[in-house]
Amino acid sequence: MKHLLALSLAAACCAAAAAAPAETRIPDAAVRTAEQLRDRALSDDTAYKFVEGLTTEIGPRLAAGDNDAKARDWVAAKFKALGFDKVYTEPVTYPKWVRRHEAGAIVSPFPQPLVLAALGHSFPTPQGGLTAEVLRFESFDALKAADPAKVKGKIVYIGFRMQRHKDGHDYGMGSTVRVGGPPLAASKGAAGFLLRSAGTDATDRMAHTGVTGFADAKANGIPAAALSNPDADQLERILTYGKPVTVKLDLDVGFEGDYTGANVIGEVTGKKYPDQVVDIGGHLDSWDPGTGAIDDAAGVAIAAAAAHLIKQLPERPDRTIRVIAFANEESGLYGGKAYAEKHAAEVAKHVLGSESDFGAAPIWRMRASVKPEARAAIAQIAAVLKPIGVEYDANSPGNGGSDLSVLHQKGMAALSLGQDGTHYFDLHHTANDTLDKIEPKDIAQNAAVYAVYAYLAAQAEGDFGSKPGAFAKDKDED
Amino acid sequence: MKHLLALSLAAACCAAAAAAPAETRIPDAAVRTAEQLRDRALSDDTAYKFVEGLTTEIGPRLAAGDNDAKARDWVAAKFKALGFDKVYTEPVTYPKWVRRHEAGAIVSPFPQPLVLAALGHSFPTPQGGLTAEVLRFESFDALKAADPAKVKGKIVYIGFRMQRHKDGHDYGMGSTVRVGGPPLAASKGAAGFLLRSAGTDATDRMAHTGVTGFADAKANGIPAAALSNPDADQLERILTYGKPVTVKLDLDVGFEGDYTGANVIGEVTGKKYPDQVVDIGGHLDSWDPGTGAIDDAAGVAIAAAAAHLIKQLPERPDRTIRVIAFANEESGLYGGKAYAEKHAAEVAKHVLGSESDFGAAPIWRMRASVKPEARAAIAQIAAVLKPIGVEYDANSPGNGGSDLSVLHQKGMAALSLGQDGTHYFDLHHTANDTLDKIEPKDIAQNAAVYAVYAYLAAQAEGDFGSKPGAFAKDKDED
Repeated sequence: MKHLLALSLAAACCAAAAAAPAETRIPDAAVRTAEQLRDRALSDDTAYKFVEGLTTEIGPRLAAGDNDAKARDWVAAKFKALGFDKVYTEPVTYPKWVRRHEAGAIVSPFPQPLVLAALGHSFPTPQGGLTAEVLRFESFDALKAADPAKVKGKIVYIGFRMQRHKDGHDYGMGSTVRVGGPPLAASKGAAGFLLRSAGTDATDRMAHTGVTGFADAKANGIPAAALSNPDADQLERILTYGKPVTVKLDLDVGFEGDYTGANVIGEVTGKKYPDQVVDIGGHLDSWDPGTGAIDDAAGVAIAAAAAHLIKQLPERPDRTIRVIAFANEESGLYGGKAYAEKHAAEVAKHVLGSESDFGAAPIWRMRASVKPEARAAIAQIAAVLKPIGVEYDANSPGNGGSDLSVLHQKGMAALSLGQDGTHYFDLHHTANDTLDKIEPKDIAQNAAVYAVYAYLAAQAEGDFGSKPGAFAKDKDED
Repeated sequence: MKHLLALSLAAACCAAAAAAPAETRIPDAAVRTAEQLRDRALSDDTAYKFVEGLTTEIGPRLAAGDNDAKARDWVAAKFKALGFDKVYTEPVTYPKWVRRHEAGAIVSPFPQPLVLAALGHSFPTPQGGLTAEVLRFESFDALKAADPAKVKGKIVYIGFRMQRHKDGHDYGMGSTVRVGGPPLAASKGAAGFLLRSAGTDATDRMAHTGVTGFADAKANGIPAAALSNPDADQLERILTYGKPVTVKLDLDVGFEGDYTGANVIGEVTGKKYPDQVVDIGGHLDSWDPGTGAIDDAAGVAIAAAAAHLIKQLPERPDRTIRVIAFANEESGLYGGKAYAEKHAAEVAKHVLGSESDFGAAPIWRMRASVKPEARAAIAQIAAVLKPIGVEYDANSPGNGGSDLSVLHQKGMAALSLGQDGTHYFDLHHTANDTLDKIEPKDIAQNAAVYAVYAYLAAQAEGDFGSKPGAFAKDKDED
């Protein structure tokens, strides 16, 4: 990392020398204030208490489910209690999907139950269930290449096994199989789809749900579910006997019209440029098996705690700090899309955005997509964050996180503040996503990082390059 | 441990000097053979393959359930395939208990689902479920002391939290709460009973089932279930709000008459004393959420592998090696009781017994309940086992393991061969009890230990003290 940092500092210096007038800079006084903010945040329990309250008093928050409205009310009340100047909502409409019952079993040759979870947007099985032979493919590409005549009527199975990585990169293929596998199998006439859970808990009988690629009730959908890792092992072991393996799926799930929820927004109003916004947030919905502590009560909590800490400073920040609790990220960034659509015309006023949606382990890496003249200001932010373990990777873009990546694609400058994801996918989208997985000191570090970034972005003299179409060439590396 | 070992060797020497004629000894040639057997066993995969086959081809084995008879047939066929001289069954009759459906939820103040498992022998809730206020007790003793007027109509909750220990000793109180709590609560008029799972996986949303203390359908029974550890945390957190907490239990479970299963027995017939028996085994039934790999396919597998290795020696052992796959250990040692009842009159011919029912992590401790004149022979066995990590604790009794403890109480000399139980209760009685939890090299060490003990007990010159009532004063420390 030293090499990268040296490069970035060198780049910042050169840029400063060559284009001094346009250079964005953060005043020294703001840096001093940010250092104090950082240190105070490390012993602040606002974020932890936020997650504790939301996951205890509301619990699971499936988009459009019974707890959707309750969770919005809870967060709005909490934003007010935290002293935010404005609290309001913006509507988000999306297809409602429900999970009523799910079960699965091997029927032959060795009858036994399977631990599985229907994927979000899965189609239901017929009443009484679907029983069909399992056809295994070694990879997504192998399914792509498959003759539809062989796939027709089968339950397709793909067993991609995710490995643990700090940056969680195996989720790329894991989510490709989950999102893309069922539609691909359906297009070839499959009756159903099973995958090995996109999760790294190799020995835990927890199925990882998550959305699949059927947009709505009009899709050419089939029933689709994820097996826990040990159940996938068991299925694969049984397949090695060389006998036909028949599985029964009983998924009472599906679409139920449209639902209108909302993004819940809280603001600390800027003193100097109240209409210029620093965007931070997380998503309020969660998958239903767990209580959505790491995914993503933590994200909303981190952003809320950061804004709360900034609000407690003797003086208001120059720009507005906006905390967004996004609606229905899980089924397809619905909250992020609604937000980006509503605010696209004013994208230049969204000076810098970053959403937290990767748990609450320590943040170890910062990446940015900003104009070259703002690199020095980003390096100033990085310098305040370095003592608490954050390395600045100046050579890769930062897409702003899940929902905010949509506004980033429309031109908002953005950061990616990457949590250590080594164990994130052990828990992701399972019943195990609960409060006990969050370390109070780690989530405090997250809040410190967000407080520092949001405050310094609010105080910067000059902008970070937000304008329509500004970052169209960024590759999304997260 | 050195101190204990020195004491035991000293005791052995003195005993030898004082009572030489009655001293039981193992011939040197047998010790040499046992050393070879041990070393061969360490690289033998018979035990692992046995567990793999049973858990894959049969899966869960709830006593009296659909897989009960299938599992017996499977084991009988496997015993024949392993070359045992005799394979037969002995009937075991017990109350049949079934689990059809189970669910639970907090109804107020914060509605949300709970992960729980009905306890074995739990009574059902009324159709439509049972909704009642939760009354927490800090301990089993606190419930004992409680005024029935306060308990009446409530769902009693006890949150004893097990900690990990190598010898698993916290299971003492864990199982006291599970077995004794529901009858105690019922006697005070409680409507239902919940406990924090008797399990050490503090952050895993896996409920640990296990039997409770209602003997049969005639008991004064109530619905009783175990919450996963994180769900117990959640319930306790909600109780701290100081509002009445109401829970709904929906347990469609209960007794369904009697069932007759069987102990499945395989023997390697002794050459010199065919009617004298060394007893080894495990139990064939398992709880239904998992596939019963560590509890207790492993036990049957370890014993079967040990006997198979002995059978492969150039010469038969002097005494008969008997492998018993016990029926329905889980609901109350039914297989062990039936076996002890049938064989009580001939207990003196059961020279030494030990059942494996504590997983398949490495065996680290040997304890024995034998006559003083057999201590030197036990020390000879210990000397062969020491190089593979087994310490001889000569100062505590060994009760022979779960089912065989019943025959031990009737006078059979017995060993306890203790596995490292540090993580046993992470998995015990949960869906996570599956094949992947077994390390092939560890279960091979277990089979080596059983092969050595069984072979040397078969070859000993003299007996270990089995006779009616011989060990009535032993305290059961396991």
